[in-house]
Amino acid sequence: MIKTAIIGGSGYGGGELLRLLLNHPGTEVTQVTSRSHLGEYVYQVHPNLRKRTMLKFCDPDQVEPVDILFLALPHGQAMKKIQKYAELAPQIIDLSADFRLKDETTYQQWYGSPHLAPEWMPKFVYGLPELHREEIRHAQYISGVGCNATAANLALMPLVKAELIDLDQPVYVEIKVGSSEGGAEGNAGSHHPERSNTVRTFSCFGHRHTAEVMQEMHLSKVALTMTSVELVRGALATVHAAAKSAVTMKDLWAAYRTVVNENPFLRLVHEQRGIYRVPEPKILAGSNFADLGFDFDPQNGHLISICAIDNLMKGAAGTAIQCMNLMSGMDETTGLEFTGLHPI
Amino acid sequence: MIKTAIIGGSGYGGGELLRLLLNHPGTEVTQVTSRSHLGEYVYQVHPNLRKRTMLKFCDPDQVEPVDILFLALPHGQAMKKIQKYAELAPQIIDLSADFRLKDETTYQQWYGSPHLAPEWMPKFVYGLPELHREEIRHAQYISGVGCNATAANLALMPLVKAELIDLDQPVYVEIKVGSSEGGAEGNAGSHHPERSNTVRTFSCFGHRHTAEVMQEMHLSKVALTMTSVELVRGALATVHAAAKSAVTMKDLWAAYRTVVNENPFLRLVHEQRGIYRVPEPKILAGSNFADLGFDFDPQNGHLISICAIDNLMKGAAGTAIQCMNLMSGMDETTGLEFTGLHPI
Amino acid sequence: MIKTAIIGGSGYGGGELLRLLLNHPGTEVTQVTSRSHLGEYVYQVHPNLRKRTMLKFCDPDQVEPVDILFLALPHGQAMKKIQKYAELAPQIIDLSADFRLKDETTYQQWYGSPHLAPEWMPKFVYGLPELHREEIRHAQYISGVGCNATAANLALMPLVKAELIDLDQPVYVEIKVGSSEGGAEGNAGSHHPERSNTVRTFSCFGHRHTAEVMQEMHLSKVALTMTSVELVRGALATVHAAAKSAVTMKDLWAAYRTVVNENPFLRLVHEQRGIYRVPEPKILAGSNFADLGFDFDPQNGHLISICAIDNLMKGAAGTAIQCMNLMSGMDETTGLEFTGLHPI
Amino acid sequence: MIKTAIIGGSGYGGGELLRLLLNHPGTEVTQVTSRSHLGEYVYQVHPNLRKRTMLKFCDPDQVEPVDILFLALPHGQAMKKIQKYAELAPQIIDLSADFRLKDETTYQQWYGSPHLAPEWMPKFVYGLPELHREEIRHAQYISGVGCNATAANLALMPLVKAELIDLDQPVYVEIKVGSSEGGAEGNAGSHHPERSNTVRTFSCFGHRHTAEVMQEMHLSKVALTMTSVELVRGALATVHAAAKSAVTMKDLWAAYRTVVNENPFLRLVHEQRGIYRVPEPKILAGSNFADLGFDFDPQNGHLISICAIDNLMKGAAGTAIQCMNLMSGMDETTGLEFTGLHPI
Repeated sequence: MIKTAIIGGSGYGGGELLRLLLNHPGTEVTQVTSRSHLGEYVYQVHPNLRKRTMLKFCDPDQVEPVDILFLALPHGQAMKKIQKYAELAPQIIDLSADFRLKDETTYQQWYGSPHLAPEWMPKFVYGLPELHREEIRHAQYISGVGCNATAANLALMPLVKAELIDLDQPVYVEIKVGSSEGGAEGNAGSHHPERSNTVRTFSCFGHRHTAEVMQEMHLSKVALTMTSVELVRGALATVHAAAKSAVTMKDLWAAYRTVVNENPFLRLVHEQRGIYRVPEPKILAGSNFADLGFDFDPQNGHLISICAIDNLMKGAAGTAIQCMNLMSGMDETTGLEFTGLHPI
Repeated sequence: MIKTAIIGGSGYGGGELLRLLLNHPGTEVTQVTSRSHLGEYVYQVHPNLRKRTMLKFCDPDQVEPVDILFLALPHGQAMKKIQKYAELAPQIIDLSADFRLKDETTYQQWYGSPHLAPEWMPKFVYGLPELHREEIRHAQYISGVGCNATAANLALMPLVKAELIDLDQPVYVEIKVGSSEGGAEGNAGSHHPERSNTVRTFSCFGHRHTAEVMQEMHLSKVALTMTSVELVRGALATVHAAAKSAVTMKDLWAAYRTVVNENPFLRLVHEQRGIYRVPEPKILAGSNFADLGFDFDPQNGHLISICAIDNLMKGAAGTAIQCMNLMSGMDETTGLEFTGLHPI
Repeated sequence: MIKTAIIGGSGYGGGELLRLLLNHPGTEVTQVTSRSHLGEYVYQVHPNLRKRTMLKFCDPDQVEPVDILFLALPHGQAMKKIQKYAELAPQIIDLSADFRLKDETTYQQWYGSPHLAPEWMPKFVYGLPELHREEIRHAQYISGVGCNATAANLALMPLVKAELIDLDQPVYVEIKVGSSEGGAEGNAGSHHPERSNTVRTFSCFGHRHTAEVMQEMHLSKVALTMTSVELVRGALATVHAAAKSAVTMKDLWAAYRTVVNENPFLRLVHEQRGIYRVPEPKILAGSNFADLGFDFDPQNGHLISICAIDNLMKGAAGTAIQCMNLMSGMDETTGLEFTGLHPI
Repeated sequence: MIKTAIIGGSGYGGGELLRLLLNHPGTEVTQVTSRSHLGEYVYQVHPNLRKRTMLKFCDPDQVEPVDILFLALPHGQAMKKIQKYAELAPQIIDLSADFRLKDETTYQQWYGSPHLAPEWMPKFVYGLPELHREEIRHAQYISGVGCNATAANLALMPLVKAELIDLDQPVYVEIKVGSSEGGAEGNAGSHHPERSNTVRTFSCFGHRHTAEVMQEMHLSKVALTMTSVELVRGALATVHAAAKSAVTMKDLWAAYRTVVNENPFLRLVHEQRGIYRVPEPKILAGSNFADLGFDFDPQNGHLISICAIDNLMKGAAGTAIQCMNLMSGMDETTGLEFTGLHPI
């Protein structure tokens, strides 16, 4: 049994990690921390865990050494104490944005302040197995992934790997997201009467996750446009790109089939019948699948690629567990078998 | 033109009053106050009013005299300064709970602290025209109504007026409410991911509006059970009561037809066909109608009475405007003609 | 490995059974039938099962013998061919209403037509382990449970077992349900613009599940009032009953603790802090838990008991799998470990 | 009083027309037709109109002459009998798609079958006042507008009029829509459990409304990508376009201010504070406003323009009434004063 602990267990990412680790056959959770909920049962904050665990939140300063340490802190916290955390565990998986980017200058440009532990940046592998599976198998430190970046990266991956996009043309990524993406802390805009039924574009350009898409897809002209919709869990990325001139529908089928065959959590959804013909986030709640779809207008060379995920699973905790499985030599899908629900 | 002002215009009740007054042919709004939004355009807080008014929020200490003053403050505020407000206007309509109850002791029992202006309590008429129309016509001071109390009172009114209920048996009122009822200030439970999709019973007994039902319906054994559901505007009250022994379905039809005929904003919904056979709050959003329905199980003497309202309209601002119309000698329905939308 | 097949696999109950059986460590699904989707992959109808199974729907007339046969047909179908189904398997679990009631006359009274296989009625055990665990362990034929009946029965069970209710007084059960309860076939009222945001009371008295509550709880004066709310999965039953005169809060705590300790899928939710203080169906989506809560007004002797379930799980397929586990000598919770999600 | 009648009054467009005409000070509705609901009260289908009108649905073959005839039939019906309808009224406003396009060949290309009354096509003016106000004032026949086309056209209008877009580059329009857009007839995908919580892209390219955008904006390289979201009323169009090289933020402000000043139902939403900083459809339910917003990334020349509408109002019935007002010499905004609700 791998011994794990979670620093920062009262948020949505931490709660999802906890749910997954408690049900994982190869791991044991020894401690979960929260300053604000110190001493409370974790099920008082994560009510789905009632009768599943009697763990209580403990003090982050009293964490004992473990095999793998998960950090699920607000952005900017992990880098402050990364040295200390490294003393607690030989392997760390950090869900925050602190160690996703490879370049100190890029970090400052997108996050608006200098990185506090730049020497640690190269030690982390970007934790998306679909892009870095082999590195992750041998990694000591794994960064989490941005949920929107993940939806965008997985939508782009088949096109980029097969070199189907004209990179001189801009790539526009429209992303629709649920409210859990904002985290467990409320704000004026997340008050139910204001947030309900919204179709609210909260970022036209400049969303921080853009940096992860540029880095991982090696794209320079890419924009993420973010719109909140009525949904709790889920994100859908729609890529609009210009195809290279010779691209055919056949090339697209080949590109998507390849990535789907190589990756256990990618599925291609491209049906001619039934209700579910395209990727949709709602049926992915709780699942680690990322569903991919595409369409192509040969007349205008307009490529559309779609990726649906559960932002808390494939976009955060699920992918982190997938990385843990790879790092530990377990089957990549262990503990991530939940298929999602229908209807929901 | 009646000159009006609103003290406390940034909340949901105040915003709804403002919307109604701006569209009312007989009134003019001279000032709207808000300390927290001082100097902002009202449309920055109430975005539906953009291009309809260039009013800005002003300081509550700088309100000029008007004909009718509306108070839309948090509970407990109006009674602190009622003397001062009375100097600003000959007529006052207060949306808060401060002057709804007639009895100082009852107030303390339900609100947990002594009333600060008990000498003003008898000066106020309980502002539900369906119960106190004639008094309201000649009133100087009107209290608002509790939204849940209104749904319960209007569901009970036909049964109570026609004396169909066995008052020795308890009356259970199950109320399902939308999130706007909690007001414009958020809390942990109103954060969208937590509040969405809920069916959350937040009060089994002891809800403060119970006092208004006891007072207005002259009932002693009545309980309000409050459950939040996924909805922004709307409340549905379902009354369960025991019928007196001789009651028939015919008596019920007569009782409901009477109240519906006597009151322009009451409608009876009791259809045998179509989708909308019973009262439903969703089609009442923005409307001042209260829809009533009933059913009866003669075998067990079980009476069910249902009332659906928009909590911000018939349950608050709409009824306040209805009172204003009566107090001013205008047609009771002026400015309240909006029928609600379908579908929605 | 227990060999199972599902007759009628395209509906919501059948789909949920399939999801559970495919993930169950002790079972194998050999066939799933559907006339209307004959030859289609099951994942085309149940999109969550994509990449999990390559099963196709087969002809119901070509089902091969299995160890346990699940029937997930529309009401009234199972009893027509029960003899034929019994030839296919030594054990049958029927999700429909056909074999829930013990009495032919009662069946006709509530379902409006004569039972077509009355001689089979006594052969079936009512499939709610919380009420009939030992019988189920040795049963050959198990009836499914009504979802609303289950929410009501589990809310009533602690009170009835501990004999806390005054049975001379009526028991009112208010039930709020999601749209999946209506099944996979649409109708005018389930069209999204009409069904969205509803709080729609579709049955004041006389809901068929009432018969299951009367039978299982041995109650005569009980009414179920059914209201649709905005939710896909989930049901919440709120019982209003009169306490016997000597009942105390301590008796209630004891009664609920007893049933919760004796039953792995019952949980007591009665918190003084946090957001989730009472049972709520939303966090149960996909889970087999039934969450119980209660409150008591000693002054009026008013008892409230609340039960939240996922109607497709504890209210249908989950309980059926729980029965299968008991019948097969497996641990009662096998394959039912999913805890539900938070947030959702 | 202008006498009006509605052919096809049981759908959502017809119901919305009826609501508006009944509240319009200058019109009278003499007849509303429906074959399927013949003889029923209109409030049985449109429950918001209860106690507002006692009109019943009549036979479409028994419509008497009126001043203005509204056609709210399914697509393809109006053109079959346009000659007959023209004998009933000197002025016709047709909400369907039959007379929106100017070119017979284009019609066949997008609608897949030949136009049945091509000689009538040039007689109709495209009924969007923001584009054709003066023609509409003097028109005899007005075509309705496509709701998605309207959101796209109004988002594009400021950019196109001010000639800010590089027309050699493709224009991508992402449109998110509510379920009422599909009309009052249900289908498998509109069943509430399947349609709820969706983010479902139902058309990547080739949506019929594209033809209206090409025609009205004189664009050739434009694609509409349609995604259903959880919402009943509302559409949000997001235009992605490439700016001409010299374009500045100042040019954009000027372009939007111009169209907003010239059109009573256009509003610019571009705030730095508060919750509602950008256009959102939810606050427009029932309102005829179209809210516009924009953003610009000068580094990449990426223009974003956003338009939110209520698809049944500005996208259908509201715009039709606006046209009626212009045709009749009334103030353009008469009967369309409802501001929408907040919160909702």
